Amino acid sequence: MEAYAAELTKRTGIPITSADLKKVLGALACAKEFWHITHLSGRPFNVVAESLKFFAERGWVKVENQHLELTPAGRKLVDEQGIKPPIESGCKACNRRGISIERWQDLLNRFKEVVAERPLPIIDYDQGFVTEETTVARIALMADRGDIQGKDLLVLGDDDLVSLAAGLSGLPRRVVVLEVDERLVNFIRQVAEKENLPVEAHIFDLVHPLPAELRRQFDTFLTDPPETLEALAIFIGRGLSGLKGAGCAGYFGLTRAESSLTKWRAFQAQLTGQFNVVITDIIHDFNEYVNWDYLLESVRNDLSFVQTWPRYNWYRSAMFRIETVDDNFFRHEEEMKGAPLYEDQEALIFTRRFRKEQ
Amino acid sequence: MEAYAAELTKRTGIPITSADLKKVLGALACAKEFWHITHLSGRPFNVVAESLKFFAERGWVKVENQHLELTPAGRKLVDEQGIKPPIESGCKACNRRGISIERWQDLLNRFKEVVAERPLPIIDYDQGFVTEETTVARIALMADRGDIQGKDLLVLGDDDLVSLAAGLSGLPRRVVVLEVDERLVNFIRQVAEKENLPVEAHIFDLVHPLPAELRRQFDTFLTDPPETLEALAIFIGRGLSGLKGAGCAGYFGLTRAESSLTKWRAFQAQLTGQFNVVITDIIHDFNEYVNWDYLLESVRNDLSFVQTWPRYNWYRSAMFRIETVDDNFFRHEEEMKGAPLYEDQEALIFTRRFRKEQ
Repeated sequence: MEAYAAELTKRTGIPITSADLKKVLGALACAKEFWHITHLSGRPFNVVAESLKFFAERGWVKVENQHLELTPAGRKLVDEQGIKPPIESGCKACNRRGISIERWQDLLNRFKEVVAERPLPIIDYDQGFVTEETTVARIALMADRGDIQGKDLLVLGDDDLVSLAAGLSGLPRRVVVLEVDERLVNFIRQVAEKENLPVEAHIFDLVHPLPAELRRQFDTFLTDPPETLEALAIFIGRGLSGLKGAGCAGYFGLTRAESSLTKWRAFQAQLTGQFNVVITDIIHDFNEYVNWDYLLESVRNDLSFVQTWPRYNWYRSAMFRIETVDDNFFRHEEEMKGAPLYEDQEALIFTRRFRKEQ
Repeated sequence: MEAYAAELTKRTGIPITSADLKKVLGALACAKEFWHITHLSGRPFNVVAESLKFFAERGWVKVENQHLELTPAGRKLVDEQGIKPPIESGCKACNRRGISIERWQDLLNRFKEVVAERPLPIIDYDQGFVTEETTVARIALMADRGDIQGKDLLVLGDDDLVSLAAGLSGLPRRVVVLEVDERLVNFIRQVAEKENLPVEAHIFDLVHPLPAELRRQFDTFLTDPPETLEALAIFIGRGLSGLKGAGCAGYFGLTRAESSLTKWRAFQAQLTGQFNVVITDIIHDFNEYVNWDYLLESVRNDLSFVQTWPRYNWYRSAMFRIETVDDNFFRHEEEMKGAPLYEDQEALIFTRRFRKEQ
């Protein structure tokens, strides 16, 4: 497998290890749909796509009706290499989160009502929202850790409408949303006014530093950043800039589909080093995203098995919780106009480079 | 609260922030037992003990029948500061783990049978084992991530008897245990022989580097280290020394009771920096420990509320999963005789310094 990994790395310019190939083969042993294989293998979108294309060329995988299947040769390889599929053991009661929304059913029902008319995701801002259950699970998680009740909450980017769920819960003292999309800001304002929630929303692009009156004002921040290293540093750095001091918390999602573990490692080193915060939780697959309308338009169209509509919500992210251990943490207060927020070699949206213009 | 935190820090020599005091006060609003308060506040044993002692001196807390309760003055303070208790939202079906042992019931039953006669924890090696459910949940977690089936597993220290649960699951190809306690090595050998498991156990002190024949031989390691920074680096570093290369995994527990978040942060910076590995999971309270016989003998005896037998398994640790992203990671192969494995200012066992000799 080492030689194959080296060949693929050379061909694609993306670092791919034999361990990556084995993860994709292991996923193939129990899944047929590209999106399911991507989810199960925990490898970036493009690593999975390139590996499957390579396997198909070698005759280890065949594509039929846009589905993928190991050939007898592929099955032999999997056996020889001793590759076994994962044994699914996630808790079904809490959808693997460890946090239950059972006691939050009233909030879930109210939240579903108020967001029924929400604005739909658009490609310009890398949008795509999580299920209502996920949004409420975020409230439950913050409440479980004492990070929302009686607290001031800053939400940076809010296509998930966490601010409204927080407001409806009656727990936070104040919620401030900074959001670049005017449609969302208007929607949040309308609902907040109608429901009399302590939620304010402002049109704001995070390439700019937080305005002075929002610095050091919050106990907790929550964001779901685009996943270039630059965007991660900016979004989390702005969140930290809003926090009061020691013992405050930040929450954000990070995917495996758009970020390699190499990128994860680099960002974790930055968090615990330069940023001087601690990671208290990384909850696998906590955030479940609703398949967004523009998915197939945004991804490569040179592979038939990619151009297939997913049958379940395959796109997940791990939920990170960070905490400030003292007052001496990084606050990102530089102007960052022109920073590459949305595109790198691993991010989904970048696969536009593989699209044939029609 | 800042002034109180500064006073306590000065008095105890342990860094204590106002956020720590608020966490303890928040826990006091819904718990009366010292061990419960320690668990809920997520703060080190000694920080909680010193804070409670301080609160009692100030008249904010009264101690009755070894239980703690906020006085009217304490309640007023909590209200004034806007401190709210956590809202427990953990999933009861999986005991907060996100990983279910439902499909692993047969393994759990078999495991309980074979470990019925296990050696009991002794203080010499900082022992204390997890519940049988926790051990089986570890197998389920590894299986869910594809880290045990068909794999070679290295277990460093095994009072939890994970090696036997792994062997009984029929999943791993080979399991090797290195353990300093001869009683445990003999017990594991006896069961492995009787049950014909692919498990071998050796008496070994991890202050020594892994023998050459065990280096670069394993896909996965698991350990539950003592929690000084030195011990963490040695145990995890030895585990890494056993791993084959990229895409291998390591599992270990880390508590809040014996390690401050400052220590967590320092160790995470070491993992993602010098060690060059990524943290893929941190699962809050995954590991539940059975209260060990020597608990009250090992902790301070100058505070009546500490000298009370816990009514539930209060001692928990978060489960970390790390993964190697390439072959270029730290392998600890130095001799470390005399390293301070078991005692630092935060570790439970260190509280012997507070014991009055009788």
